[in-house]
Order: sequence, then C-alpha cells, then structure tokens
Amino acid sequence: MAGKATSGNFFEDFSLGQVIIHATPRTVTVGDVALYQALYGSRFAVQSSEDFAEGLGYKAAPADDLLVFHIVFGKTVPDISLNAVANLGYAQCRFLMAVYPGDTLSATSRVIGLRENANRRSGIVYVQTTGLNQDGEAVLDYVRWVMVRKRHEASAAPVASVPQLEPRVAPEALGGAMPPLDGAGYDVALAGCRYLWGDYAPGERIDHVDGMTLEEAEHQMATRLYQNTARVHFNQHAAGEDGRRLIYGGHIISLARALSFNGLGNAFHIAAINGGRHVAPAHAGDTVYAWSEVLEKAALPGRSDVAALRLRTVAVKNRKAGDFPLMADENAYEEGVILDLDYWALLPQ
Amino acid sequence: MAGKATSGNFFEDFSLGQVIIHATPRTVTVGDVALYQALYGSRFAVQSSEDFAEGLGYKAAPADDLLVFHIVFGKTVPDISLNAVANLGYAQCRFLMAVYPGDTLSATSRVIGLRENANRRSGIVYVQTTGLNQDGEAVLDYVRWVMVRKRHEASAAPVASVPQLEPRVAPEALGGAMPPLDGAGYDVALAGCRYLWGDYAPGERIDHVDGMTLEEAEHQMATRLYQNTARVHFNQHAAGEDGRRLIYGGHIISLARALSFNGLGNAFHIAAINGGRHVAPAHAGDTVYAWSEVLEKAALPGRSDVAALRLRTVAVKNRKAGDFPLMADENAYEEGVILDLDYWALLPQ
Amino acid sequence: MAGKATSGNFFEDFSLGQVIIHATPRTVTVGDVALYQALYGSRFAVQSSEDFAEGLGYKAAPADDLLVFHIVFGKTVPDISLNAVANLGYAQCRFLMAVYPGDTLSATSRVIGLRENANRRSGIVYVQTTGLNQDGEAVLDYVRWVMVRKRHEASAAPVASVPQLEPRVAPEALGGAMPPLDGAGYDVALAGCRYLWGDYAPGERIDHVDGMTLEEAEHQMATRLYQNTARVHFNQHAAGEDGRRLIYGGHIISLARALSFNGLGNAFHIAAINGGRHVAPAHAGDTVYAWSEVLEKAALPGRSDVAALRLRTVAVKNRKAGDFPLMADENAYEEGVILDLDYWALLPQ
Repeated sequence: MAGKATSGNFFEDFSLGQVIIHATPRTVTVGDVALYQALYGSRFAVQSSEDFAEGLGYKAAPADDLLVFHIVFGKTVPDISLNAVANLGYAQCRFLMAVYPGDTLSATSRVIGLRENANRRSGIVYVQTTGLNQDGEAVLDYVRWVMVRKRHEASAAPVASVPQLEPRVAPEALGGAMPPLDGAGYDVALAGCRYLWGDYAPGERIDHVDGMTLEEAEHQMATRLYQNTARVHFNQHAAGEDGRRLIYGGHIISLARALSFNGLGNAFHIAAINGGRHVAPAHAGDTVYAWSEVLEKAALPGRSDVAALRLRTVAVKNRKAGDFPLMADENAYEEGVILDLDYWALLPQ
Repeated sequence: MAGKATSGNFFEDFSLGQVIIHATPRTVTVGDVALYQALYGSRFAVQSSEDFAEGLGYKAAPADDLLVFHIVFGKTVPDISLNAVANLGYAQCRFLMAVYPGDTLSATSRVIGLRENANRRSGIVYVQTTGLNQDGEAVLDYVRWVMVRKRHEASAAPVASVPQLEPRVAPEALGGAMPPLDGAGYDVALAGCRYLWGDYAPGERIDHVDGMTLEEAEHQMATRLYQNTARVHFNQHAAGEDGRRLIYGGHIISLARALSFNGLGNAFHIAAINGGRHVAPAHAGDTVYAWSEVLEKAALPGRSDVAALRLRTVAVKNRKAGDFPLMADENAYEEGVILDLDYWALLPQ
Repeated sequence: MAGKATSGNFFEDFSLGQVIIHATPRTVTVGDVALYQALYGSRFAVQSSEDFAEGLGYKAAPADDLLVFHIVFGKTVPDISLNAVANLGYAQCRFLMAVYPGDTLSATSRVIGLRENANRRSGIVYVQTTGLNQDGEAVLDYVRWVMVRKRHEASAAPVASVPQLEPRVAPEALGGAMPPLDGAGYDVALAGCRYLWGDYAPGERIDHVDGMTLEEAEHQMATRLYQNTARVHFNQHAAGEDGRRLIYGGHIISLARALSFNGLGNAFHIAAINGGRHVAPAHAGDTVYAWSEVLEKAALPGRSDVAALRLRTVAVKNRKAGDFPLMADENAYEEGVILDLDYWALLPQ
C-alpha cells in the first residue's frame, strides 16, 4: 500500500553470506562534534581540543568513538532492524582507525548467522558490520544479532547457523585507532584527572556521581543526527496514549560514557566493546547515573605509551549509583539498571 | 514605548515597487548542516556526503535546499511579516544556484502587489524575494503574499495591484542549482533507493510510512537557526494559558521532505516550489506523517542526466497517511491535513 | 565512596594566591557557532556573516563574546563551584582578544580572596579567571566570587582577605577584542538597525519587546556545550519531585542579549561586563523578556571608529518589559526580575 516506500527486510529476506551495502554515506564534520558535545557534555581533552590532540600525535581532534559507532550503526537500521522484535546483543566491536572531521563514513554488513525461532514467527539474524572511510579503510567493525519478524509464518526456515563469538576482544587487537602517543604532550592537569593506567586495579569500582535527566528533544535530535530510522524512537502517536517513545540504547551508552569522565578522565579512547545489554528501557524524564568496575588490565604488545582497562560501566535510572547496583539475583538485574556495558578503554601509562 | 526597538512594518509602510534590503547576512556552515540533520533526519546522500556529491560533479556537499529557503525566508520576517494576520501563500520559488558551506546568504525583497482589504483593517502585500550569495548571485527567488495589519484604519488605501502568478514554474526554468551529473557516479545502493525518474508515473501515490513527533525545543531551535523572529513560534506567555506556540510552517515542510525519502530517495534536489498551503497549525506533541503524489513528469531542455517530477507532498498530524488523506469535499481539507505542497524535484534518469 | 571520582573542592581546599589550571581545553568551531545561533537566535551581522566581518577588518566572523565567556566559565566549575551554596557575583570582566572558530580555549584561575562566614559552615572564595587561546594569549579575564561549603565545620579559618573590585571597567581598558573598523564597510541596512553610538543618550530606555519561552532540552544542551558540570542544571531526580532543574544564569544572559538586538542592533560587541546579579531563578516554561537602559557613554582613547555604551540590561520572566520593571523598593527587585546586568558594548560612531 505504501507504493515505492520500503518497510524494511523480514527474516526471510536474509541469507547466509549475504552482503548488504547500506545507504547514505555521511561526512563527519565539526558540526556533528559540537552537537555530540551539546547532547552529552563529554570532557575528554583529546576529542575536545585540536591542540591537545595534535600535541599527542593525532592528526587533529578525533571524533568521539561512540559518535562513529552511532553513525555506522544508524546506516544499518533501515536494512537490518526495521522489523526487529528485539536487539539481542553485540560483540567483537573494534575501533580500528581514528575518524576525523572531514572523513566520510559508509557501512556494509555480512549475514554471518541465521536461526529461526521455535514459534516460526521470527528468527535471529547475525550480521558483521564494517564502517568504512572515504578511502575504503575499515574504521570500525562489530557483530550484532537481532530478532526479526518473519513476513509469513509458513515460509521455510533456513538451515540454522550460529557464529562463535569471542567473549571479549583480545588485547592484541586493540589500539589501531590511537597513534603512538607522545607522552610528553599528555598534561594530566589539562586532561582533568590525575589517575593513569597504573593507578587502577581489577575489582576497583567508581561511582561517577552525577546524573542527567533525559529529554525527548535531545534523544530525537541525537538519533536523527545518526540517521537512525528506528520508528520507536520518534513516534508518540504510534506508541499510543499509554506508550512512550523508547530512547535509542546508544544514547544511554553515550550519556554513561560522558558521566564516566568523573573517575576515568584519562580513559579517552574506547578501543573495543566486548558486549552490552540494554537491560531495561529508558524514557524522557528518567535521570541516568552510572558506575564502573575495572574487570581486567592488559598491556598492548609493542606499546609502552598506553595500556588497556577492561571496564564494566553500568547505567541506572532514577536512583543513584553509589551502592553499585547490578544483579538482584543470578538471573535478574536490580531494579533501575538500564545498561551493562563491557569494553576496553586505553589510558596513558 | 519601546524606544529604539521596532515593531515591524504595517500595511501603510509598503509601497509598490519598494525595494527592501533585509538585515543580517548569514554564512552557512557545516554547523548549520549538522543541526539541520539533527532536526529532521534527512538521508539524501548528496547532501550527506562530500564524496558522493563530488563524485557527481558538485563542488562539495550542497546545503539542503530547504535550509537555504528557511534562512532567506527568515531574513524577510522582521521587515515583511511581524504584523501579519496570516501568511497566505507563496509561488514561483526557484532554486537557482547550489549553496555550499562557506557561502554567505543575504536577501532583498521588492513589493510587487498591494491590495487593502474591504474591512480597512489590513491589506495584502505581495513581495518577490531574492536570496543572494556573497558574490551577489541569486541563489533563490520566490513570491510570497501576506495579510498585514494596518497601523490606522483611517489611512488611505493604495491603488490595488495584484500580480499575475504562474500556477507552476515551467520545466525550462529548472535545474540551475544542479550541475551536470556524472551518471557513473550515481550509486543507487549508496543512495538508498532503486527507483529513478523513469520508474515514476503521474497519478502514482506513495505513503512515506514513518511518523515524527514534534517537540518545542526542536522547532524553536530550528526557527532561531533561521533567524526567523516571528513571535508566535517562541512565546508561550503571549499565547496565554489556553494558547500554544505555533510551529513555523517551514519546519513542517522540512519534516515532510525528510520523511519523503522513503519512496523518493533519489529526488534529492528541490528545483522549485510551485505553491503551498499550511492548511492547519501544528503544535508540540503532534505527530507528523506524509504522503506524496506524482502530479506531472517533465524532461529538462538539453539535459539527459536528470529530469523532473512535479510532486504534491501532503503532511498530516496524528493520523497515518496510508489512506492518502486530502480533501473532505471541494472546499475543505480532511481533518488532520496540515500541509499541501506542490513542487518540482529532480531525479537521475 | 565514589572512588576516583571527584566531588569538587570545598572551602578548605582553597588558599590565597593559589593558581588552578582548569581541565579540558576546547577548540571553538563553526559547529559551536551554529548551536549558539539555534539556542538564542542572535542577529548581530558581525558574528553571523564572514563577509560582513571581513569587510570591517575582522580576520573572520568572531565567535559571540558570550559563547567565549560561557566556555571559559564552564571550565572553572569543576574546580571552583561544585560545592557552591551560591554564586555571589562577578566583576571586571574584560574581553581582550577576538576568538575565531579554530581557536582553542583554556582557563586558569587565581584565588585572590577568602573569607569564612560567621556560621563557619561556608566561606567566600574570590577568583580571577583568565581565558587563554592556543598561543597563550589572554582572550578574557574576570573576577568571580562564590560561597562554597566547608568540608568540616571545625576546620581552621584562613586569614580573611577581600579584594578591592572596580565598580566598572574603565573605558580606557575597552576595545582590545575589536580591530580598528573600516567604517566604509559598516552597512546599517545589513546590520538591521539605523541607530549608531551618537543616537543614544544616558537615561534612555529600550523595551526589547519580544519574549522567548525556556525549554529543558535547550538549556541542558547549552550548558553541556559549555562543558559546565554544575549539577543543579541537569538532574531532575536530585531536585526531587517538588524541585526543578535550575537554568544556568549564563543562558539567561545570552537570551537577554539576543533579545536586545531589537533596539541595540549595532551594539555587536560586549567589551566588558561590569557586574551582574541573577536576581531570581528561571526554569523551563518561563518566558523571558528584556529591557535596557543606557547608563553612560564613553569615547575610547585613540579610536574614532567606535565608542562605548554602558548598558544595564534587565531580564524578566512571565511579564512584559514595556514598563521597565526593576526595583520594588530600595532593597528588593520587582517580582519577575531575574537578571540585572551591567556591561559595556561598543558601537560604530
């Protein structure tokens, strides 16, 4: 009935090995960087200051890693997840090359797994997505799996195929997006935090203290900035009178990351995301707090300038994070937990 | 009482043939482009990607046509319509030259018609407005007519003069703002739509499917970005307890245009606006949907790269557009219709 | 309990003569300029147009003076005022050098006064803050004093020391941030106001007529753009059910300044802020109006291109400003007054 408009792919439209070229290449600009700043309030000096970044060996102030992630992710939505029942997870997300204002991002995905659900009404699609710059170089790749509706319950099921995914990105694979740092250029006073890599210990927990209240205009502007077209974020009419617009999970990740500056001020680069769960939805009016735990420390082969912390950052809503809320029991998260993110960040040694 | 502050022109302040130089030249930047992106979520590849645009023969990614329109229009508001009772229409709007970040826009208007209303309390002012770049070249021109309050009911009426307006811009006048396209550079996969000019037929209708809910902060930021000072958009106090801030009609046009990507993804350039009616007001909280009809097809003299579709895009609020709502009867629009826009878009052949 | 996160300095943490290097240098870009435009709707031609600015002798369109102020001020918040009970005032704020997109701002403060309060629970900290560009040149300096909580009531009090502050910046100190203007380049039609310096007289008052309604998303985006981390602006949860998020006082200053264009359209540069009082808080939903009074006129030594007006700009909420509301009696402001700002602006002669 919609004529030439598309309603997105259904489970039957995917096949193992299929490669999808996503639409709308996107040049990242200082305009995007300013909006990202206004939306989250990040304070990492490398992304904020040309001078600080160039003093360390960057070509310019790089775009925030998560801005790059959101733009690449957004491109995949019209092809992969318009008919998603649920976003189930992501893994093996590696930031491979720094992105600077002026770079143009595009994205392709390959279907690496398919499994129909027992109810025959939907199935799980696994894709590996690569973000590319204007020279065709990979700047980011990650695996994501989504439960997608079938168009017709009677359609034949594909042979089930589920990829093996690593529980975490290996430390050897980290660091490609960060040039060798000129340590003399790293000024902890300007960076705003006196703790370097050596000051953190596995098991250590940090309450990031501050809270931010979410607004409809903010998450909508963010999600459109990323050209993410998932309908649930924008349409109050379709949600119905008792419904609410759902906030893009990546918006919460970026907010938690910005809050984490307080305590992790030198962890200015996300080198990889090992996995993440959007435990509960967030809506306008909710106030987000965050805390982090150091899960693991790792040196990077051949680098003495920086090393990696594996971090769990947990975002909660409408409660403070000073008591480090996480699991209520083995199977369930505590009330108020909305995000459980596992990632590698790099810090100067 | 306001001292040196102005309250805008009244009907008596206009004279036939009068030329008005509007204030505040404005350099368009990638910052404006990013905000425009965040406000509407447009996905046309030419405006989104430097690489894509340059591959086709553009000097760079051009600014969205409607961003140019809104900026030029905004400049005219303090002189033309601060005391408007109603914006009655516009016609003969032609996009004459591409605008790139770094270009500086200014605007002048000429009064081309005047007619006092029978009630002697207001009159209709017709202006032809031209948007100019820093080299004094016209990038845009259009005719607009507005009902403006008189300062004093007793003031003498001017001799009535009403310009003849074309019902539509002639196809021969289209295309100046689009360079000859290198067809080999047009990648429909990256553009996100497989339908080219030849695939559309007059009478065809397209439901653009998606809906967007309007927010106060969004339309206010948009309207200030355009330096449009019309008071009704910004002032809840003046609107009164039962009143609402009225959303700038151009905000709805831009939103409908962004929604129209789904089904018209290769119609990336608006070459002319033939006319438009803001049928009913929109307010924060309303959800906007849109549909389009192909009214006419036209080749452009001497061009085989692109050709024109004359489109009617209709925006509705708080109802879906899948049943193509338009007229309730000969004289009245259906409930929920807020915009009826008639324009020419260019598509690759 | 927060681990490595900081909760900011308390009164005991400051010592006379102490120099604080604030974190997070920040490159100003056209993205920031566009957002500032969208947030306030300013219409001064010099900041809006590269061509207009360059025609006068500027290197490019300078960033709005208040954008520079807010960015520098924002840097000081994590060190100076996270534990503030109240922001008491500022003085001697001088804009020393134009800031252009591409410049990187940082800030340092020196403690120039300390005085414990009689109740021993807090004390007043006076700091002189300097904003610097990437070449280490001062672009802005000002004095600010804040009441800051003590960590422990029992801590010893410092020797009281209160700096002498000038009631107003001397005219001889003005103008460093404005190059000698090529008067031939100043087009009052494009500037949007026909009144030059000679047209204003001390005692003259101007109602700026228009009102703007405040939105949560807008003030939050503004305050994060400035990397200002004061918690009261962002956290509805901490404010409690009966509480409200408090709007950053600088947001009100910028809004009043943008409104003041109507009547002061050629006062495009703030050369100094003599002092300011945030008389009452503002919240989302409030509508802001403004009026101004000319307090004083002054020539600048050695300059015939421009001269200075000392202005008082008063912002009010939820009432019009046409009756110039100010003091209810000697000690109290009238209901609705939220800002009383005393500053020097420069205008072409």
